Amino acid sequence: MSYNLLKGKRGIIFGALDENSIAWKTAERIHKEGGTFVLTNAPIALRMGQIKELAEKTNSEVIPADATNLEDLNNLVEKSMEILGGKLDFVLHSIGMSVNVRKGNHYTNQNYDYTHKGWDISAVSFHKTMQTLYQKDAMNEWGSIVALTYMAAQRVFPDYNDMADNKAYLESIARSFGYFFGKDKKVRVNTISQSPTPTTAGQGVKGFDGFISYAEKMSPLGNATAEDCANYTIAMFSDLTKRVTLQNLYNDGGFSNMGVSDEVIKAFEHE
Amino acid sequence: MSYNLLKGKRGIIFGALDENSIAWKTAERIHKEGGTFVLTNAPIALRMGQIKELAEKTNSEVIPADATNLEDLNNLVEKSMEILGGKLDFVLHSIGMSVNVRKGNHYTNQNYDYTHKGWDISAVSFHKTMQTLYQKDAMNEWGSIVALTYMAAQRVFPDYNDMADNKAYLESIARSFGYFFGKDKKVRVNTISQSPTPTTAGQGVKGFDGFISYAEKMSPLGNATAEDCANYTIAMFSDLTKRVTLQNLYNDGGFSNMGVSDEVIKAFEHE
Amino acid sequence: MSYNLLKGKRGIIFGALDENSIAWKTAERIHKEGGTFVLTNAPIALRMGQIKELAEKTNSEVIPADATNLEDLNNLVEKSMEILGGKLDFVLHSIGMSVNVRKGNHYTNQNYDYTHKGWDISAVSFHKTMQTLYQKDAMNEWGSIVALTYMAAQRVFPDYNDMADNKAYLESIARSFGYFFGKDKKVRVNTISQSPTPTTAGQGVKGFDGFISYAEKMSPLGNATAEDCANYTIAMFSDLTKRVTLQNLYNDGGFSNMGVSDEVIKAFEHE
Amino acid sequence: MSYNLLKGKRGIIFGALDENSIAWKTAERIHKEGGTFVLTNAPIALRMGQIKELAEKTNSEVIPADATNLEDLNNLVEKSMEILGGKLDFVLHSIGMSVNVRKGNHYTNQNYDYTHKGWDISAVSFHKTMQTLYQKDAMNEWGSIVALTYMAAQRVFPDYNDMADNKAYLESIARSFGYFFGKDKKVRVNTISQSPTPTTAGQGVKGFDGFISYAEKMSPLGNATAEDCANYTIAMFSDLTKRVTLQNLYNDGGFSNMGVSDEVIKAFEHE
Repeated sequence: MSYNLLKGKRGIIFGALDENSIAWKTAERIHKEGGTFVLTNAPIALRMGQIKELAEKTNSEVIPADATNLEDLNNLVEKSMEILGGKLDFVLHSIGMSVNVRKGNHYTNQNYDYTHKGWDISAVSFHKTMQTLYQKDAMNEWGSIVALTYMAAQRVFPDYNDMADNKAYLESIARSFGYFFGKDKKVRVNTISQSPTPTTAGQGVKGFDGFISYAEKMSPLGNATAEDCANYTIAMFSDLTKRVTLQNLYNDGGFSNMGVSDEVIKAFEHE
Repeated sequence: MSYNLLKGKRGIIFGALDENSIAWKTAERIHKEGGTFVLTNAPIALRMGQIKELAEKTNSEVIPADATNLEDLNNLVEKSMEILGGKLDFVLHSIGMSVNVRKGNHYTNQNYDYTHKGWDISAVSFHKTMQTLYQKDAMNEWGSIVALTYMAAQRVFPDYNDMADNKAYLESIARSFGYFFGKDKKVRVNTISQSPTPTTAGQGVKGFDGFISYAEKMSPLGNATAEDCANYTIAMFSDLTKRVTLQNLYNDGGFSNMGVSDEVIKAFEHE
Repeated sequence: MSYNLLKGKRGIIFGALDENSIAWKTAERIHKEGGTFVLTNAPIALRMGQIKELAEKTNSEVIPADATNLEDLNNLVEKSMEILGGKLDFVLHSIGMSVNVRKGNHYTNQNYDYTHKGWDISAVSFHKTMQTLYQKDAMNEWGSIVALTYMAAQRVFPDYNDMADNKAYLESIARSFGYFFGKDKKVRVNTISQSPTPTTAGQGVKGFDGFISYAEKMSPLGNATAEDCANYTIAMFSDLTKRVTLQNLYNDGGFSNMGVSDEVIKAFEHE
Repeated sequence: MSYNLLKGKRGIIFGALDENSIAWKTAERIHKEGGTFVLTNAPIALRMGQIKELAEKTNSEVIPADATNLEDLNNLVEKSMEILGGKLDFVLHSIGMSVNVRKGNHYTNQNYDYTHKGWDISAVSFHKTMQTLYQKDAMNEWGSIVALTYMAAQRVFPDYNDMADNKAYLESIARSFGYFFGKDKKVRVNTISQSPTPTTAGQGVKGFDGFISYAEKMSPLGNATAEDCANYTIAMFSDLTKRVTLQNLYNDGGFSNMGVSDEVIKAFEHE
């Protein structure tokens, strides 16, 4: 599908790694809807991923940036405006990584240097990005900033480890900064809380398969896919949602408001 | 704006009274986006309002229906499918009325016959509508049902009276019925919780002007207008939001996640 | 345990049917804590239950009242103040019944007369009780009113049927009336949202055993028992919680904030 | 008042600075209720405050500890068990400090070294404390851990700055760690979200007086005092609330569930 929803709009997309990434699918959809953008990711991710393929496909440039580094972000925002020919209308933050998870540390046995690093990458990077955009006055009025998050910010998913706390901090940043971005620049800031999605990053989480099957059975419309998330993000970047801000929006087939489903309860009936 | 987002989609719109109505604006927007629909309202509202004007403008038919009456709803759903030429893709429920408010009864001095009537009109009508649609298998897969609500369902707005309780019940119906509609028919059900809006209905509420000014000062993007609500509803009816269900979605300039704003706090600084 | 927490406090307890009832356990605990009270239930429940046994044990009188009937409530409140020798300090509302559930009507096939009756008994009875107490100025300052509820008011539990919507309405009443009761009479109003509990009433719900086992596995501290609920209610009636009002308080071993537990996920790992 | 609610219970209290501190009032109340405890605070706070006076009054020892330092926490927990003669039943975490606020940095102009330090002190210290308690198996079954928080974790209070994000992270830790502490040790973990309170710390926040007056007018029972918070904490440490866990509990006179009050709306009626 294609509606020209983002015709003339410019933006930056963080976090497209490979074709399983939500950010990758979103970039493809934005391109189809007429938007132009710069792709960015950390230098190491750029080496590992296939972002050049995406850049060619969508006629975009790639600017490497470590999203925890203010200089990199300054350069990214300035260059992006130059390349795209004006202020920005949309920004997608799709960044997250827990060093404790990677190193196999249980939540009750954290290494706090890792905790710090994961928090900086997964959450503070969103503040740094918005602070850079805000101070450079880089967003057009009625622009839209979206960060991807997960419901572990509200409820316990034991294997999600310290990413739960990072996502809670991220969502709080969306509200806190969203207030000033709204009041001072008429820019909206929201988070989209997505179903567990079998991206390359997601697949690293312990017990992911059992969980994805549970979530599928719990959700009346099934788990939302990366494509669904791309579409919802398009809607949030478009002019259809101009007064929606400070919100955490669930794109999850209904999971977030389920207590139990018929299918799940069945698994416990004959115990 | 116009994107052909609803091309080929058919639906029913409840509650367009006059050009200030959110349902009226939504009908106009759906028409622009290529959707076709039947307009409906209670016989008495049809006599008072200017719905014929809207029907002509949007090339629609009007079918009177008391939304608390199952026969009327049966007739409405059947005729709509006949007129539109197939199953439905979207339904907008924009109905609400408190007899206690109209009669000036304070919340602590309710007439329970009025309470019952207001509940039936404002909340149960949504269940009756969905039960009719569900039993007649009248919705296409990936169809979308939206009811308009207000944040008084979550938080106290003293003058909103028993409409607060009605909206809480309405939102619960959206979740409860949304589960079965999702699981059995792949149809999503959501509510949109809108800023206070100076519709003809809204203006009847006591203290409405003071409240609307307070809400404006509290919301970083200002109060969402009826047009904003129409646009958000379009997004929820479109294929961009297929896996969003059971949600209560705030379209309110950020009000719902504000504790206090700079502008509001100023009013209390020199007391 | 016994701490004299409610010494000198007077109240009314609705809904003690038999020794499995939460209201029954609460009455016993209040008695131990030095509080005095009147027991009440619908005439038909009084005939079926063993409330006289409880009345003797706790040195209380029983006043029959249909909680949907204003005359009965008037009589109950007046007589209670006479018997107990003054205004009231606490009220427990533990009433709920869905006629649709009893008659086996699926949520998508409601009989709306039954819906109305269940709503009146389960939810509006709480408003009627508070309206009676408020208009008679029957509560002491810093008194405490508690209604029992269930998390189906927030999230979908398919077998809970229209009781979900009734509980949502009940919780909204707690907020709406709690505002006026707080501001005008310094009385707090809260709801306690309890784990699924094998009371005589609870056991009637379809699929209850599978669900209770699921909830047990999902809750880090296991399901809260009727005794736990009695204790929490004592805390809410005591002077330890004087400024807690308009809240919905989960007594559920942590269930409400769980997304998934290790034990639940295991059941889906090898599918 | 005094009920012997905590007779025989032992614990640690973080954060008593002077007689305006909530932790100070809580220590006094715990003492009255028969509990014994160790007081702790950062070395610099100990020098500035009057904690010795409190220690004498409550017959307690003081152990200095920087709550961001694992060695200090190890020492604190071990010594406390020695002094008190056994495992612990309760812990109060009342610690918070934003360097950005102290240095006058606006939320849109953060110094990220300060952000890091404030996060470590205000939020991660809670994880470090629980990790120490958990790994040393220092809590008795059915023990209770409480951290004080503020509603800025959910909603925007512009002057609360990065403390909002810290509190969101803190509350997430309570859930995440509370799951493992519940499942593995039968210990509950909750946060109490308190009204704005004129403590020595609170008074430093910009616009605090205007805000406290606004909150007073918004809350049907008025702002909860430090004494109210001490009492609520007692209830959460007692055996009355054994199955309450992972919760964020508002002690705020009803503020959290208010949309607007009659008194607040009046200020905006004649604008």
